[in-house]
Amino acid sequence: MTDRELGAVIKPGERLDDLQRNGLRILQHPERFCFGMDAVLLSGFARVQPGERCLDLGTGTGILPLLLSAKTEAAHLTGLEIQPESADMARRSVAINGLSERIDIREGDLCEASLLFGKAAFDVVTCNPPYMAGGHGLVNPADARAIARHEVLCSFEDVARESSLVLKSGGHFFLVHRPFRLTELLLTLVRHRLEPKRMRFVHPYADKEPNMVLLECVKSAKRMLTVEKPLIVFDAPGQYTKEIAELYGF
Amino acid sequence: MTDRELGAVIKPGERLDDLQRNGLRILQHPERFCFGMDAVLLSGFARVQPGERCLDLGTGTGILPLLLSAKTEAAHLTGLEIQPESADMARRSVAINGLSERIDIREGDLCEASLLFGKAAFDVVTCNPPYMAGGHGLVNPADARAIARHEVLCSFEDVARESSLVLKSGGHFFLVHRPFRLTELLLTLVRHRLEPKRMRFVHPYADKEPNMVLLECVKSAKRMLTVEKPLIVFDAPGQYTKEIAELYGF
Repeated sequence: MTDRELGAVIKPGERLDDLQRNGLRILQHPERFCFGMDAVLLSGFARVQPGERCLDLGTGTGILPLLLSAKTEAAHLTGLEIQPESADMARRSVAINGLSERIDIREGDLCEASLLFGKAAFDVVTCNPPYMAGGHGLVNPADARAIARHEVLCSFEDVARESSLVLKSGGHFFLVHRPFRLTELLLTLVRHRLEPKRMRFVHPYADKEPNMVLLECVKSAKRMLTVEKPLIVFDAPGQYTKEIAELYGF
Repeated sequence: MTDRELGAVIKPGERLDDLQRNGLRILQHPERFCFGMDAVLLSGFARVQPGERCLDLGTGTGILPLLLSAKTEAAHLTGLEIQPESADMARRSVAINGLSERIDIREGDLCEASLLFGKAAFDVVTCNPPYMAGGHGLVNPADARAIARHEVLCSFEDVARESSLVLKSGGHFFLVHRPFRLTELLLTLVRHRLEPKRMRFVHPYADKEPNMVLLECVKSAKRMLTVEKPLIVFDAPGQYTKEIAELYGF
């Protein structure tokens, strides 16, 4: 796209950020919601085999499909997003990056993913779901940030159920969530035949509690979990560890 | 005890080891089973309030009650052990340390703990159970080491069920196990109303996968888990980290 064409694509209040990866760029609206480190960590944790078909549930501005298009040889990536403005931004980001053949952004409700896409339609599902249970006490539950962070429009039960339904047997589900909900996550995943196979905790510093957990589940797999070495974000304030710096492509 | 009295208490093949804690000593038989780091880590992870009554399921030679007698103000500690030789050694270690008033060693089957002790009889239960599921392929399943390491005489289901039954509501269950069984552990614990509240992974080195997981559950508690910072064993080969050295009382 020429600068002039780009100018026409970017709407007021939006900015075009460099993803530091294969020249990829993403539209974001700072007053709505910007992707966080969780999405980047999930893109590094997910493993996609060449030729596989991937679905990202609640894709927001499309950060996961964009990063996975660069990091993997996925045949095709779909991002499902319920918020029209976010889905529209994601679709324009895909176009800006010339990826419209490989990435499809669908506006729709993840609670109905298996109706929208059919059963056993994907090899891989990724999801960076809202972390906070329920939407109680929210001043504005329709706010874009609230929808991304709180279970206003979907519960983890919905996420697990739909992921399982749209995955083939032996398909992989990758997610990021908060450690304090780990018990519920495992109970819910297992109930939907998504067997946790690989788990990694993310610690801001080596001597701090983890604030994120990355999980890989395999549909209908045998029970046997690998807990990986800790993923540490900072060596010192403002200084990323080597692993994180490489993940961000610095 | 005088040296002469001690000589009469120690049987052939046994040795009396210094626990590096309050002058405590423990009888061990190197050809049978010696306690490992797991027991020491569990004693450091467990929290016992002054005046509480504790039960250690499958106490072996009594390492947990001995260490907890020194580290806590527990009113009374009971160790339950199915193997007569181990129970006998544990009882003699208790006598050698002059702790017979405070520690009781019972010979019996942990699968029947709630029959032996009654329901809601304890504030705290500890357990360092066999880690390996089943006893398939064991050359000698009656071997003391096999019984300590493999689920020959009890399953994790038995451990969770009996722990829950003998605990008061709000009582605490502390255990150590292998991370690869974490999903099953959480499912089983929750099924017996033992809610995981605190979890800590033990890593041989900071950049290695954990080989143990420490868990604190509270009977009938609300769902909400804290995953703690990693517990690292070695800084360099043969060199314990500060935290481990302090735990061992070096």
